[in-house]
Amino acid sequence: MSSTFGNRIHLSIFGQSHSTAIGCSLDGLPAGIPIDLEALQAFCDRRAPGKNDTSTPRREADVVHVLSGIANGHTCGAPFAAVIENTNTRSRDYSELRRVPRPGHADWPAYIRYGNWHDVAGGGHFSGRLTAPLCIAGGLALQALAQLGITVCAHMQQVGDVTDVHLNDLFLEKSQAKAILHNELPCIDPQAAALMHTTILSAKKRLDSVGGAVECAVYGVPAGIGDPMFDGIENRIAHIAFGIPAVKGLEFGAGFKVASMYGSQNNDAYCMSNGRVCCQTNHAGGALGGITTGAPIVFRVALKPTPSIAQEQQSVSLPDGTNTPLSVKGRHDPCIVARAVPVVEAAAALAVLDALLEDGRFEVPPSPDFCPQRCRQ
Amino acid sequence: MSSTFGNRIHLSIFGQSHSTAIGCSLDGLPAGIPIDLEALQAFCDRRAPGKNDTSTPRREADVVHVLSGIANGHTCGAPFAAVIENTNTRSRDYSELRRVPRPGHADWPAYIRYGNWHDVAGGGHFSGRLTAPLCIAGGLALQALAQLGITVCAHMQQVGDVTDVHLNDLFLEKSQAKAILHNELPCIDPQAAALMHTTILSAKKRLDSVGGAVECAVYGVPAGIGDPMFDGIENRIAHIAFGIPAVKGLEFGAGFKVASMYGSQNNDAYCMSNGRVCCQTNHAGGALGGITTGAPIVFRVALKPTPSIAQEQQSVSLPDGTNTPLSVKGRHDPCIVARAVPVVEAAAALAVLDALLEDGRFEVPPSPDFCPQRCRQ
Amino acid sequence: MSSTFGNRIHLSIFGQSHSTAIGCSLDGLPAGIPIDLEALQAFCDRRAPGKNDTSTPRREADVVHVLSGIANGHTCGAPFAAVIENTNTRSRDYSELRRVPRPGHADWPAYIRYGNWHDVAGGGHFSGRLTAPLCIAGGLALQALAQLGITVCAHMQQVGDVTDVHLNDLFLEKSQAKAILHNELPCIDPQAAALMHTTILSAKKRLDSVGGAVECAVYGVPAGIGDPMFDGIENRIAHIAFGIPAVKGLEFGAGFKVASMYGSQNNDAYCMSNGRVCCQTNHAGGALGGITTGAPIVFRVALKPTPSIAQEQQSVSLPDGTNTPLSVKGRHDPCIVARAVPVVEAAAALAVLDALLEDGRFEVPPSPDFCPQRCRQ
Amino acid sequence: MSSTFGNRIHLSIFGQSHSTAIGCSLDGLPAGIPIDLEALQAFCDRRAPGKNDTSTPRREADVVHVLSGIANGHTCGAPFAAVIENTNTRSRDYSELRRVPRPGHADWPAYIRYGNWHDVAGGGHFSGRLTAPLCIAGGLALQALAQLGITVCAHMQQVGDVTDVHLNDLFLEKSQAKAILHNELPCIDPQAAALMHTTILSAKKRLDSVGGAVECAVYGVPAGIGDPMFDGIENRIAHIAFGIPAVKGLEFGAGFKVASMYGSQNNDAYCMSNGRVCCQTNHAGGALGGITTGAPIVFRVALKPTPSIAQEQQSVSLPDGTNTPLSVKGRHDPCIVARAVPVVEAAAALAVLDALLEDGRFEVPPSPDFCPQRCRQ
Repeated sequence: MSSTFGNRIHLSIFGQSHSTAIGCSLDGLPAGIPIDLEALQAFCDRRAPGKNDTSTPRREADVVHVLSGIANGHTCGAPFAAVIENTNTRSRDYSELRRVPRPGHADWPAYIRYGNWHDVAGGGHFSGRLTAPLCIAGGLALQALAQLGITVCAHMQQVGDVTDVHLNDLFLEKSQAKAILHNELPCIDPQAAALMHTTILSAKKRLDSVGGAVECAVYGVPAGIGDPMFDGIENRIAHIAFGIPAVKGLEFGAGFKVASMYGSQNNDAYCMSNGRVCCQTNHAGGALGGITTGAPIVFRVALKPTPSIAQEQQSVSLPDGTNTPLSVKGRHDPCIVARAVPVVEAAAALAVLDALLEDGRFEVPPSPDFCPQRCRQ
Repeated sequence: MSSTFGNRIHLSIFGQSHSTAIGCSLDGLPAGIPIDLEALQAFCDRRAPGKNDTSTPRREADVVHVLSGIANGHTCGAPFAAVIENTNTRSRDYSELRRVPRPGHADWPAYIRYGNWHDVAGGGHFSGRLTAPLCIAGGLALQALAQLGITVCAHMQQVGDVTDVHLNDLFLEKSQAKAILHNELPCIDPQAAALMHTTILSAKKRLDSVGGAVECAVYGVPAGIGDPMFDGIENRIAHIAFGIPAVKGLEFGAGFKVASMYGSQNNDAYCMSNGRVCCQTNHAGGALGGITTGAPIVFRVALKPTPSIAQEQQSVSLPDGTNTPLSVKGRHDPCIVARAVPVVEAAAALAVLDALLEDGRFEVPPSPDFCPQRCRQ
Repeated sequence: MSSTFGNRIHLSIFGQSHSTAIGCSLDGLPAGIPIDLEALQAFCDRRAPGKNDTSTPRREADVVHVLSGIANGHTCGAPFAAVIENTNTRSRDYSELRRVPRPGHADWPAYIRYGNWHDVAGGGHFSGRLTAPLCIAGGLALQALAQLGITVCAHMQQVGDVTDVHLNDLFLEKSQAKAILHNELPCIDPQAAALMHTTILSAKKRLDSVGGAVECAVYGVPAGIGDPMFDGIENRIAHIAFGIPAVKGLEFGAGFKVASMYGSQNNDAYCMSNGRVCCQTNHAGGALGGITTGAPIVFRVALKPTPSIAQEQQSVSLPDGTNTPLSVKGRHDPCIVARAVPVVEAAAALAVLDALLEDGRFEVPPSPDFCPQRCRQ
Repeated sequence: MSSTFGNRIHLSIFGQSHSTAIGCSLDGLPAGIPIDLEALQAFCDRRAPGKNDTSTPRREADVVHVLSGIANGHTCGAPFAAVIENTNTRSRDYSELRRVPRPGHADWPAYIRYGNWHDVAGGGHFSGRLTAPLCIAGGLALQALAQLGITVCAHMQQVGDVTDVHLNDLFLEKSQAKAILHNELPCIDPQAAALMHTTILSAKKRLDSVGGAVECAVYGVPAGIGDPMFDGIENRIAHIAFGIPAVKGLEFGAGFKVASMYGSQNNDAYCMSNGRVCCQTNHAGGALGGITTGAPIVFRVALKPTPSIAQEQQSVSLPDGTNTPLSVKGRHDPCIVARAVPVVEAAAALAVLDALLEDGRFEVPPSPDFCPQRCRQ
């Protein structure tokens, strides 16, 4: 595995669905960032399941235990680490999964990669549950970015054929951000939320699942961030975003629409506004040549439908080498898009923070200092 | 800048559009891979401009000079390096570009990032010309992969509203591969090639440019390759693909279509075929949980229209802080999709080779050996 | 901080002396390595303090809690993580350390680096206590190496003016390894152990501390491992060894003696032995040009005397900017060399394992397999 | 191979002794550093051979050709690259080296690592000639550091039994620096230079070679630089220093002497001096806990005697598996210590620059700017 991310920050995610604990370490954070642990817990709670009838009835307490890296309410320069204990694990027989791989899951390639040593219980390290430590680290990154006035905002933009309105891609309307957190499903348009709800329940009823898309915007990133060719801001977001289980596509700004656009349509004209250079539109999604333009970074990820469905599917029995039908048992989300919203925010925050730190563009206010001799020399 | 890529291979790309030379070094290749330098040159020639009326009339000789890393026709274990001299550079005044940034180009963010030290001549390091050394390195990777029976095949899948048929995503039909290399534009369907040609010329006539999409398939990668969560095969391809100038979107397999699919539709059922486990369909694009399934890796990138257009656009004069119109002069491609085809192949080859090497899955045949004592101990 | 190590493995160490817990994650281990947790605990116990009168009377339980990465007694491919809870932390006032930095400690540079946000309690992340998670990870690496017949063996080679005999640098004599583990201090020669004991107690009595050296040999590494120029086996060991607190010097084979040697003395002649190419001597310490020769990797690290001494020393009062005397209080080791022995073994094991994995030279026996279709394709 | 170095800078070194060219790319330099190419050439000339009777009579022109990364006399943000053409390569038969490996050289382990694909001509990538591109990159780093008032100074501290005086480890006396560059051998003490000269000629006469040590100090590095545990300033210098061919040992400050020191001797007391916190001594060599103290970084490397000697040595004939005598032919340095002096400076400069950049502690003066709207936002 290679569950590590970052050039300047060093994120490590560990744990299996049914191991003693899951968690993360996050090294490289500057000292002196005030951390609100209650806000961190609240952020992680946004991805917790079991909140309504569109997610798995499995309840996960998901209490974040901080082990290190925080002193006196601030990052202290030492690596941060936190864990969540795995308590609500049904003890049952997973040997069937070893014999008959679930279509759309990592069972088969993981078997080839790790042999029978692979921990199949609950999906092992491939479980969506591993997005919880990603949220812990991302929640920390969000608090760090907030120090610079940077905010990250994602919403369910699509479920099946239902689409939400787009986030305003030039500034964040307060009403948009508010709506996302208050609607039952994290949409901007309450009507879209209602229709998505219906779509999900309908899929659930048919023992099926449904896919969707999450749109995310990062507001307030200054122009000039990112290291082309291969550590541009888009490369960094792409590198981490495809680590979120179920992500199969990623596009920035106008995204795939650029394929059918003309240069005269797609180019974002510049203009002066309040004495600053601004983009009149944001087809670029906030980045040109891998470097931020000062406009919001806007991207969209496609999430495939949960592969675990109770409907009968075709698979193979590995010991016999014969075709065999399979119905996946257990409690599964008919749609994981709602729960993926904070995960996408977490991933975006980590990528942007890494780029800012690597470019030396992250200044922490000086510590309350009693030493007149302390100079940055 | 961070023009380096790879965990196990170490690619470095250097050069500006008008510097003495452009080139690359590629470290970490196993010794003993036979390298055909003529085939390498031929591969690089596929991205050369000036071949027909759809690309810039600028002619670039682009002769690849190998500096190191090859001995007796094989990789020798030492880092490979090669350069292309920059000969056909029109000596002219680029100071206007410093004053008035071109919309859709990196001029403005690069100015913020590097100040006036940025080498604007010909686009500097942001020039599409830097994809030439990417092709050198990728061409080498392709020859390495060929040793394992792995082939990479891309084509223009879209230009404007015209689309080509899709590459067969379960096996490579010889006729497909042949057509791509023989049509005037690298399409599978000659009719699509003709329509795209018309679309491009029409845009060119209107002093405009047009976007498109390239589809790429990697055939023959064994199941079990990739290191989730963040170095899965998709993460790696994403990391490098967004380093290709103009790429604004990336999707694997069914891609963004998964957002409107049901699990029962999207899951690829397994079946036995000739004593092997196979996927009946390939919506996953050859990867589950970041690990290859044995099916072809299929992905698609969206390329924005060339931002350099002769039509008048709105920009700003930086010294004055005033709005000002701009018409970009010079010889520019009205559509870079055709030339991007080998570039996308190169990027895919480098990402796949890196994953194979990191997983210890790349075996070179033993050297012609006269030492009975040489044992891998 | 950058408490991460490895190209192919990804080690992260976290924790402060007085945080909730200290621990590590270790990503990138192949699946299928049998792990004996009791042996791991026993290895970690070798660095525990409080065993005799030469170390701090502070007792640390140091029970290793494995959180993830092990299933059915084997590595499962997912990242390994383990923690040790910090229980025996005296709650006391450390504010004095903020005001008057201890000579020889990281207090002053850490203050400049992290400001007053630095967690000074017990030395924070700079505490020797952080070598405990290094031992956990290294203990795991040792068990992995044992699968390949590779063993690592270190001993106290020097304390003050007392020196132990050298490890045989061509093969491991069983009696040597045995003696090291059975003597009160980990020496080969019991007489050296006794003299070192006297030296340490004498320093302790004078409220002083004393330095030393640890010698380490890695037996059984095949020839051909290491990636010059900058990831050779020596670079890798050096990279991690200087992360062990107190290490101020590192030498391989003849080490600094080479400065006064002639080529005719220093060159290790080759000869045939049992049909194999062998080195007759091992001045090179097992590596030429960064690549292993098949002879044992032998190195020696210098460890400075514990900076915490009760004797009065000169320091400054940061708030006042005045000179001020300081006597360090608390329970401190008069000599940390004995406890450093397993730490050096751990560091060596991690560096060698990383090199072996990166070179694709680590084969795990296939898993007990019931699938006839599982082929490495 | 892994001839790449750096976290924030990305150095790649390429070339074999007899390939078309040798060179380097250096990515990640901030834009705006003024580069004096004549001074760069002069720095590289310091390592050139053939200057007197203590080095190889082989003459290497070693003209540095810059390919990219410099515009208008300053770094421009794009990767720097430069090459040296290999002109003075005697065309002769190297097949003997394939058959009978030279003791003390990388021939044998490289054969195991790369098979017969290894380019043995002139030592291939293992040749000391590859320190030339290291000097190019290091020379650039030195010019970057000079912008911050940081200077690097090394000298031959030992050859055989002859030792030079030590560099003052608290400040650089101008007379010391001057003497080093003006003496025939780069020593501080002219008498030491004379004695070393005699020692080298005596070894040469006996068809032998002799080892030595280089001491290096970096002056002016501010306190607070370095990222413990594994990217501390010592780890970084160690990581690159062991990539210099022939280095077998490395020590900081008091180095191996600490093994026989007491804490009361070794600890560097703090005092106030001109309103600043200073170290009264510098046994630590400028670093505590991996972080710089503000005192000079002082280290010493041991260099083994050149393994190529004309005296008969014992080796083996690989094809036959029999013992066979060997006398190395060709023009070789009887002592490479003098030529290693600038190489050690180059390595130190690269490591320190990388640490400074990663800590965001490298500020380039703003570019001559005509844009009132350019704000770092």
